[in-house]
Amino acid sequence: MLKTINEIGMIVTKKIRAAVVGYGNIGRYAIEALNAAEDFEIAGIIRRSAGPVSAELAAYQVVDSIDKLENVDVAILCSPTRAIKEIAQQILAKGINTVDSFDVHSQIVDLKNTLAPIAKTHNAVSIVAAGWDPGSDSIIRTLMLAMAPKGITYTNFGPGMSMGHSVAAKSIKGVKDALSITVPLGTGIHRRLVYIELEAGADFATVERTLKADDYFASDETHVKQVDCIDSLKDMGHGVHLTHKGVSGATQNQMFEYSMRINNPALTSQFLVSAARATTKLPAGAYTVIEVAPIHFLQGETDKLIERLV
Amino acid sequence: MLKTINEIGMIVTKKIRAAVVGYGNIGRYAIEALNAAEDFEIAGIIRRSAGPVSAELAAYQVVDSIDKLENVDVAILCSPTRAIKEIAQQILAKGINTVDSFDVHSQIVDLKNTLAPIAKTHNAVSIVAAGWDPGSDSIIRTLMLAMAPKGITYTNFGPGMSMGHSVAAKSIKGVKDALSITVPLGTGIHRRLVYIELEAGADFATVERTLKADDYFASDETHVKQVDCIDSLKDMGHGVHLTHKGVSGATQNQMFEYSMRINNPALTSQFLVSAARATTKLPAGAYTVIEVAPIHFLQGETDKLIERLV
Repeated sequence: MLKTINEIGMIVTKKIRAAVVGYGNIGRYAIEALNAAEDFEIAGIIRRSAGPVSAELAAYQVVDSIDKLENVDVAILCSPTRAIKEIAQQILAKGINTVDSFDVHSQIVDLKNTLAPIAKTHNAVSIVAAGWDPGSDSIIRTLMLAMAPKGITYTNFGPGMSMGHSVAAKSIKGVKDALSITVPLGTGIHRRLVYIELEAGADFATVERTLKADDYFASDETHVKQVDCIDSLKDMGHGVHLTHKGVSGATQNQMFEYSMRINNPALTSQFLVSAARATTKLPAGAYTVIEVAPIHFLQGETDKLIERLV
Repeated sequence: MLKTINEIGMIVTKKIRAAVVGYGNIGRYAIEALNAAEDFEIAGIIRRSAGPVSAELAAYQVVDSIDKLENVDVAILCSPTRAIKEIAQQILAKGINTVDSFDVHSQIVDLKNTLAPIAKTHNAVSIVAAGWDPGSDSIIRTLMLAMAPKGITYTNFGPGMSMGHSVAAKSIKGVKDALSITVPLGTGIHRRLVYIELEAGADFATVERTLKADDYFASDETHVKQVDCIDSLKDMGHGVHLTHKGVSGATQNQMFEYSMRINNPALTSQFLVSAARATTKLPAGAYTVIEVAPIHFLQGETDKLIERLV
């Protein structure tokens, strides 16, 4: 809930009004997470073409511009990673908070530092890269280092579908549809199983050779398999196993492990909604999730949350 | 490192000067963790009686009052939990930050709210209950709830020695020394194995009956065993296994697990030192660890840490 002071000086609480930008998988699950959060209400959904609305969206205002929605506190950006930077800049410039699940690790500092001055100028807050990796896993890695500053952390993904690798495989000439499964082999090493549905007349051996030479796959053990139908293989379950063996002070062999097995877009969207809540509790600026106090992600009174969790 | 501005207006960095208050197990390991952290220097050690100093402390200033140490930025309170509140109040009133590993879960809100006004008045920062449980585990529990707000979290301790239960057993009449091992049975249920060294002439059956009726043990499956020598059984290794099965949005069965196997005082002291660092980055006030952005626990430049961890 947001606390504001009304005309007669009383503190009143109101729901956080969230707009969902983009209506793919992440957008759909974001609507579910918002509906499950009693401190939020859905201001509306922004799609590129507002056109005819499907039955499941009948309850919501669906528009082609955030300007057509009223009193939006925060925009949950469910657009592809490559579109995030521009959309976030535009929305922050309107004084509306943003959250995103931008997922190119090497470009997160740039994204944050691009958005920070815009957010500050327009008294808004942005939390970037707030999915699960980057995202919640980043918090675990940070905490492991706070507990044992020396040592190696391994992030082992899967087994599960990699969105990025599937898209990369699909973009290869002759590929009709593709699914890339990430299999963890331990110590941060992964095998990739790539299932391919070919276009009529395409040559499998050529596709396989091109794929294995692609930057996305060249450094991993990669197996390519031809199948008749990709759709029947799709499972949005995923997982991670993080390990850290390190040194606390002068004490070696401190062992830490974190793992999860989750519906991938459901977790991403839930964490985006938790981050959207956190934007309402922070000073203007742009943040990664490790720069946000964890309590801000949760609904509830501070003392009650401390009693329950600390 | 602390950033300050020198006489000619240049930004200079200096080490954080930490005092260690109390020199039991936690204090010893805190010295090790401070020595391993290149952004810290040890201002001195405070003991009730400054008396003769053992060889291992020859390198440090050992005093009976923090007033005898110069330019202390933060005091790491390694005293027993029951003494923390008073010591923290005294030190905060001098404008010196404090951290502690206070461990009575039900009294943490009171401790924080007692220290907060004193910290604010004297422009100091206190982070309370910054061990591992309460402490780093609290951050994991908070994060799990941010990822799946509905569902049950179980905290399973051990196997390992419980300090609190060992002290409780030792305080029973006829007990010369005692060691209480916590054994996790899953879903937050624990068995307690209590090893007892009897005083001469004490009756084991009486001790066993008294112990099983004690509040510390009455609600758990408790086994009491008589041994000749407690000291030979002592092992400061401990562990925890946290599980959360919950709902992200409308998606059930999201599964999260965290576990660690650690030297207990080494981890506690390391996390205290990480929290001591965090006190230098926060506005005046008192905080629990879930109210602190995780990046503050770490040494290093913000952008470099984000590149490495997010």
